[in-house]
Parts: sequence; C-alpha cells; structure tokens
Amino acid sequence: MIGVTLGDPSGIGPEIVAKSIRNFGTDQILLIGSKENFVNLLPVLKMDERLLSGCKFVDVGGERVSMGKIQKAGGEIAIKSIEVGVQMAMKNEIAALATAPINKEALRLAGSKYIDHTTMLAGLTGCKDVSTVFETGNLRIFFMTKHISLVEACGQISEEHVFQSIINASRCLDLLGIKGGKVAVAALNPHSGEHGLMGNEETLYIEPAIKRAHELINVEGPFPADSVFYRASKGEFSIVISLYHDQGHIAAKMLDFYSTVSMNIGLPFLRTSVDHGTAFDIAGKNVANEISMVQAIEKAIKYGNGYRKKFAEMEPITVGELAIE
Amino acid sequence: MIGVTLGDPSGIGPEIVAKSIRNFGTDQILLIGSKENFVNLLPVLKMDERLLSGCKFVDVGGERVSMGKIQKAGGEIAIKSIEVGVQMAMKNEIAALATAPINKEALRLAGSKYIDHTTMLAGLTGCKDVSTVFETGNLRIFFMTKHISLVEACGQISEEHVFQSIINASRCLDLLGIKGGKVAVAALNPHSGEHGLMGNEETLYIEPAIKRAHELINVEGPFPADSVFYRASKGEFSIVISLYHDQGHIAAKMLDFYSTVSMNIGLPFLRTSVDHGTAFDIAGKNVANEISMVQAIEKAIKYGNGYRKKFAEMEPITVGELAIE
Repeated sequence: MIGVTLGDPSGIGPEIVAKSIRNFGTDQILLIGSKENFVNLLPVLKMDERLLSGCKFVDVGGERVSMGKIQKAGGEIAIKSIEVGVQMAMKNEIAALATAPINKEALRLAGSKYIDHTTMLAGLTGCKDVSTVFETGNLRIFFMTKHISLVEACGQISEEHVFQSIINASRCLDLLGIKGGKVAVAALNPHSGEHGLMGNEETLYIEPAIKRAHELINVEGPFPADSVFYRASKGEFSIVISLYHDQGHIAAKMLDFYSTVSMNIGLPFLRTSVDHGTAFDIAGKNVANEISMVQAIEKAIKYGNGYRKKFAEMEPITVGELAIE
Repeated sequence: MIGVTLGDPSGIGPEIVAKSIRNFGTDQILLIGSKENFVNLLPVLKMDERLLSGCKFVDVGGERVSMGKIQKAGGEIAIKSIEVGVQMAMKNEIAALATAPINKEALRLAGSKYIDHTTMLAGLTGCKDVSTVFETGNLRIFFMTKHISLVEACGQISEEHVFQSIINASRCLDLLGIKGGKVAVAALNPHSGEHGLMGNEETLYIEPAIKRAHELINVEGPFPADSVFYRASKGEFSIVISLYHDQGHIAAKMLDFYSTVSMNIGLPFLRTSVDHGTAFDIAGKNVANEISMVQAIEKAIKYGNGYRKKFAEMEPITVGELAIE
C-alpha cells in the first residue's frame, strides 16, 4: 500500500489525485489530506463520494480553503499531510509515499521552516543526503546539481564530485532494483569538449572520475549531452548523470512533457512526486492533467517495496549536494 | 531549383542524397559532386543509373575514393562541390543550397583553409556574419553561441549580445518569410533564476535586453529552458533563442533525433544541411538514415526563393559571433 498526500488543498493536487484513483485498486493506495476539502471538490470534477468507497483515507482535518489562493490553511494541511505520511512510512504502514504539489509561500505562511518537500522529508527523517532521480519512459536521470546557477554548476565540476555522483547514481539503480544497469555521464561542453577545443572539464575532471569509478561501476562517458539522453531513452543506458538542472530537465520534458516522475533517493522509503507545482491559476477548474500523478503513484507501487528492503541493508548514501526542489 | 552537394564522397553523403532523390521532382533538384563515385555507389544501395534519368548533375570530377576513409581526394571533391554550388547560387542558377556532410580532417588534407561548411561559405561569399537556425517540426531555434565552452557561453551573456540576438532572430524569421512571428528567449539558469535566487544573468542582462528589443520586436522571455522549447514545438513561439549549444541541441534532438535541419542565415542565399557528420563507420553499407537530408532539401525548396528576395532588400545582418559548425 502506497501513501498519497493530496498536497496543498487549494492547488490542483486533490484534483489530480481524484482523477488518478480509478487507475488503482483500493488496496493499493491510502489518501492523506483534508477530507472535507477533498469531498467539497468532487462535484466540480463531476464526481461524487462513491469515488471514495472502499478507499482508505487518513483525514488530517484543517480549515476549509478557497481554491487557487496562497493561504495559511492550505499550507497547514499540506504540512500535516506530509508529517502523517512520513510517520506512517517510518512505521512501515505504507511502502512508499507519492506526493501531490505544495506551495513554498503557503508553507511559509503556515510557519514551516522547510521550503519544499525534499527539505521537509530530509528534516523529518533525519536524512541529510537526498538525491533526485527523474524517470520518463525509459529515460532515467540522476542530477549531480539542481537548484544553483549555471555558472555555479560549472564550478562544481570536480573529479571527486563526478566520482561520488557515479557511485550514488549506481546506488540509486540498486535501490530501484535495476540489476546490471549501466551509468552514463553527460558531458558539460558542446561535442564533449572535442579534446579540449571547447572546454576542458571533460579531460581534466570527468574522464578521470569515470576511469576511477569504472573499477567499481559499469559506467561510460562523457557523452555529448545532445545524444546521451536520446540513447538512454532507447534503452542503451540505465541512468544518465546530468551535470546541471536544465541539461536533464530539457531532455525529460522534450521526451514527454507530462509524464516525468521525480523520485527522492536517500530517505528510508521511496518518495515519488509529480514534476509540476500547485498551478493555482487552473485550480478548481477541472482542467488539470493527471498523467504525472498517475505515473508517480505507479512508480511508488513498482519500486516502493524493493527500495525499503534494499535501503535497510545498504550503507547510508552520501551525496555531494542536498537536492532542493 | 535547389543545388544539392553530395559532400565527402567517402562518407554517407552520396548515399543519403541517393535515397532522398525519389522524394523530389527532377526539376526541383540539381546534384553537385563526383558523378563517377556516385554511380559506383548505386549498386551497393540496390539502385541503378535510372535513378538519375532526367536529373541534373554537375560533375566536379575528381579521383575515385575508398569508402569510409579520411582521404585527400574526398576532401578535394567536397571542396570543389561547395565552390561550384556557391558560384551557381551567386549567379542565381540555383535558389538555395542543401549540403551533405563533409569532414574536417579531409578538408585539411586537401589543403583547405576552412574547417567546415559555415566558414567556407562565409569565406567564399565574403559574408562575415552568418548565424545558425535549427528547424525540427514546429520548433525553430536561433543559436546565440555555439562552439565555445559552457563557461565561455555563460560569460558571453550581456545585454548587448542578447539584444543583437533578438534582432537577428527576428531577421531570420523575416528571411524565412514567417510573418508576425514571436521570438522567445530561453533563460540561462534553472527556473529562469527565480528572481536572482539561482543566478542573476536574467535580471541583469536578459530582461533588460528583452525590454529594449520589445519596442522593435515581438519578443518575450526569459522563459525557463525546460519549458520554452516544448511550448515553441506546440506553436506558441516562432523561434527560441538558445543561449548555448546544448540548450537548443538537447531540445531539438529529444523532439526528433533524425529530423533536425540546420540553416545558415546571413549568406546571400539560404543554405540548409543535415544535422550530422560523414559517419565513416557506416559509409558504403546501405544503412544510413536519409530523413534529415530529405528535410534539408525540403526546407531549401520551401524557404529558398523567398529568402533570396528578402535578403537582397535587407540591410546586412550583423551577428555577434560567427557560428562555426
């Protein structure tokens, strides 16, 4: 059984969860959120309470919210839902957690010290090193860096950092139960630098890191970034290390704009999530696309149980940077 | 009528051109290359000389070459074909030029001072400022920088450079006959920098450039790079300014790996080309994919005539950087 948090009740989270439910059995998912706000939304979606028959729902209470607005009550419900989800996951009452979107500003109004899911989950579980993996179709991406400027991301290319990322990407594959997987490393510069003609990060740092890691890990690269993600999407590599945010994000979103699932690796349980925000501008209008939420729940079901077992056996992951979303 | 150069005769150029011919009328294309080498290749492709019946062919002569090898004779034929193509285009005997791939090393062996098509075409026509535009489906991309390191590309972000690129991207749309087109500018940093939280190139340089250009051009942005190319592919923008090589390359290749056409804008005639090299490893094996060549010829036919007329009326384009391929 997977826990599904409804996210901020004034965003599109509850809507995309409601639209996703029919894809799963009532024994597969457990909803966590404000039941009153959820039930009130159903007529807008042309659904009624029968949707919930047989479905497990942990009601976290909270005030009635207005749709499409940043508000304290929305932040409070979002926070409480995650706290309950984490408690249940830590007690092994749910195998994994799939989360609907929350809002930074609403979290702040509700007095949270966390700015997003990843920091909150890391804080609540005491895990410092949490990395982010995208999965879109056959394409899996490990982010070496995420929410820093491109100049900073370039500055973070070092042999040690790339080496650690290869080790961690390989551990992510283990945790997801992908056996015999091959790790690819994307290059930083055009044409992988063409032997130093257009940048030397490949020859100075990336190639030595791959060479060193190759003794432990099935890893190849660096490959030009404009072909490696395509090759992985065709099954040639199990995971690609993206050196900076947009490198992997552009690849995933161009492959399939709506189907990317983000996964946090490094918590004691797997957390999957949609790849978009609360979309307050379209909340409560019955126009939100639920594909990413369906995919997030599917991946949580697919990988959740195996992840827990493997994580319990494994040494703690150390990742160079805490991935902030 | 469009001129089609066969490229290096020992690469896959002649093969992909031969496979493309059936898509066009004999009054639409004129082939330029070594006829002997071309005819010798046909049996390998399970084709015979009837393929050429009615087809105009300018034979540049040259020695017989071995397939799949870097050699002086291949470079000589490639150079001669381009020289003939440029002469014919300058004399208005052909409307545009579609080029099959050539090889840097073979050019060098043949004694050329040019390293690729773009520098050769610029040199032969006396045009200094030539820019590169990609077209893949509905997605059109203007490259502000191309073959420099990513760190250098970040360093080249200035208000003036972005402003000039917007002006030039808009002129490219004019030359391609796209009326009322909208230019979008991609951001450099994740989430477009989030108001300086993750990089300040957007607030310091890109936004002021867009504001200034907005008085002359229908331009918007900066938009996060992981959504702007997708939005353009759905028809929202006519052209996207890519700030660095891989930003636009990843987007185009993930949208459609085989169908990207590269166009040089800034010559007196339009030059289109495939988006790949000579692929010596598969040359002469009848396995090369001709889709990009077909597309390159189609775009030359589609845009060639209009481009010439508009170019003749227009002030010279000034581009910040000569795009080197």
